[in-house]
Amino acid sequence: MIDKLVEKIRKTHAPIVAGLDPVMSFIPEHIQKKAFEEYGETLEGAAEAIWQFNKGIVDCIYDLIPAVKPQIAMYEQFGIPGLHAFLKTVDYCHKKDLIVIGDIKRGDIGSTSTAYAAGHIGTVKVGSKIYHPFGEDFVTVNPYLGTDGVKPFVDVCKEEKKGLFILVKTSNPSSGEFQDRIADGRPLYELVGEKVAQWGSECMGTSYSYIGAVVGATYPEMGKILRRIMPKSFILVPGYGAQGGKGKDLVHFFNGDGLGAIVNSSRGIIAAYQQEAYAQFGAEHFGEASRAAVEAMKQDIDHALLAL
Amino acid sequence: MIDKLVEKIRKTHAPIVAGLDPVMSFIPEHIQKKAFEEYGETLEGAAEAIWQFNKGIVDCIYDLIPAVKPQIAMYEQFGIPGLHAFLKTVDYCHKKDLIVIGDIKRGDIGSTSTAYAAGHIGTVKVGSKIYHPFGEDFVTVNPYLGTDGVKPFVDVCKEEKKGLFILVKTSNPSSGEFQDRIADGRPLYELVGEKVAQWGSECMGTSYSYIGAVVGATYPEMGKILRRIMPKSFILVPGYGAQGGKGKDLVHFFNGDGLGAIVNSSRGIIAAYQQEAYAQFGAEHFGEASRAAVEAMKQDIDHALLAL
Repeated sequence: MIDKLVEKIRKTHAPIVAGLDPVMSFIPEHIQKKAFEEYGETLEGAAEAIWQFNKGIVDCIYDLIPAVKPQIAMYEQFGIPGLHAFLKTVDYCHKKDLIVIGDIKRGDIGSTSTAYAAGHIGTVKVGSKIYHPFGEDFVTVNPYLGTDGVKPFVDVCKEEKKGLFILVKTSNPSSGEFQDRIADGRPLYELVGEKVAQWGSECMGTSYSYIGAVVGATYPEMGKILRRIMPKSFILVPGYGAQGGKGKDLVHFFNGDGLGAIVNSSRGIIAAYQQEAYAQFGAEHFGEASRAAVEAMKQDIDHALLAL
Repeated sequence: MIDKLVEKIRKTHAPIVAGLDPVMSFIPEHIQKKAFEEYGETLEGAAEAIWQFNKGIVDCIYDLIPAVKPQIAMYEQFGIPGLHAFLKTVDYCHKKDLIVIGDIKRGDIGSTSTAYAAGHIGTVKVGSKIYHPFGEDFVTVNPYLGTDGVKPFVDVCKEEKKGLFILVKTSNPSSGEFQDRIADGRPLYELVGEKVAQWGSECMGTSYSYIGAVVGATYPEMGKILRRIMPKSFILVPGYGAQGGKGKDLVHFFNGDGLGAIVNSSRGIIAAYQQEAYAQFGAEHFGEASRAAVEAMKQDIDHALLAL
């Protein structure tokens, strides 16, 4: 799957992932209204609105980018119907030949991580039948429990040729509270980064490992060091745009080959029509606003990568 | 909710939580067969088997214990139907007046943790209507992202009188890989424990905080120190039984009032009928075997607490 990601980045010239993190306030009135008319002001109604919103965006941007990253929390908050919209989104993106990174940040003791890995990137057996319940291509994993909480995900990646992005240094303001603690003379995130490189060395694609890392765009200096610690790991970079990360900061996350990182933008793409820069599209044409935002982001990153 | 937990522990004399972590191999043949006859060897069939298994156990043990802890991964692995079985289990346990600890180990950046908190222990708004999508009473939370990943859960606890158990020192063999790193002269889990005490001081029940911690039974010496660092936090103690934690190790997790900890057993209770000690019940009477296992666990803990 990492080879497919590299190939699609090369083809689209866009190391970009669109974060499909729908919040009700992002969804245009006309979509909400139609969904509520059909399903009422219910969890099913919310899920229908989310699904129609996602579909509208994906239809307008699928040819520009290699991958999407639905944040499962935004669906899970609407219970079972919300998760059904997540699943429909994953399936639809696959039909559009997009790589799907499930932003699930799971991680638990071994036997429990095995279950999460099976459900999201692997298979479960029911009697004599085999199912792929959620079917994402990559998932994000929380490393706080150490190797035996991560290993079951790695094992499934080997079997199914799927991939991971493991949280190393997250984009949020308080990420340093524990992640930056100096242990054995070095910050914890570096130790986690070393483990990612080690886990990743066991499952290499052609030029990059199946096992990547999450490092926030909001911490470019740390990104520079982590890029060196994990030379063969793809870095998923959240925090661009709305969270404060800028194009020029991104260069540190890439390798000299112009690869090695994929930058996420969520609100900046999916709620583009609410920004002044794209207001001319109006709520009716929210998908086209998203397309324009992806094109602008592509230019911003292209420009930054000239410095490589 | 913490006051209700304390009251129920006092009433049942059992600081015990039954981990409803169904694995297909735990579920008696006759239940699987019936579920597959009705729904086929499908995800729905697996979910029906899980639900009937849980119901059989809960019916036999609900009067002996204060709380249950379904591990959501065991349901999530069977996709949407599995999560539907999770929801049915939560609802059914509430009908039996059990406190439900959702073992979800979520944790993300602020806006995303807000969504998880809303979905699991809070409410979501759809148009003018309010819903409680999953409706657990407590959830487990991963602290790797620091305060702004935890705070949204704490805020919902204040509003809804719900509770948390935050991962401090987990029960698995490799938990020390990051959690035991010495930072500023002290292991990371102590620093996390201090934060738990601090977050918890903002939302106190009568004698304990709404904000508790997870500390594995497999690390009793660390439990002793963490008990002192977080005197007002309830400790959820996994790792008893199948993972190697013993009754005599548990005493360190309790306060002098005989409270302050609740011990989880999953396999030891729900798959009791597969153990030699309870084999006489047979698979047909798996629920009664679970009841006997709960009674034995209660005695073991009672005995250990004499040392307080």
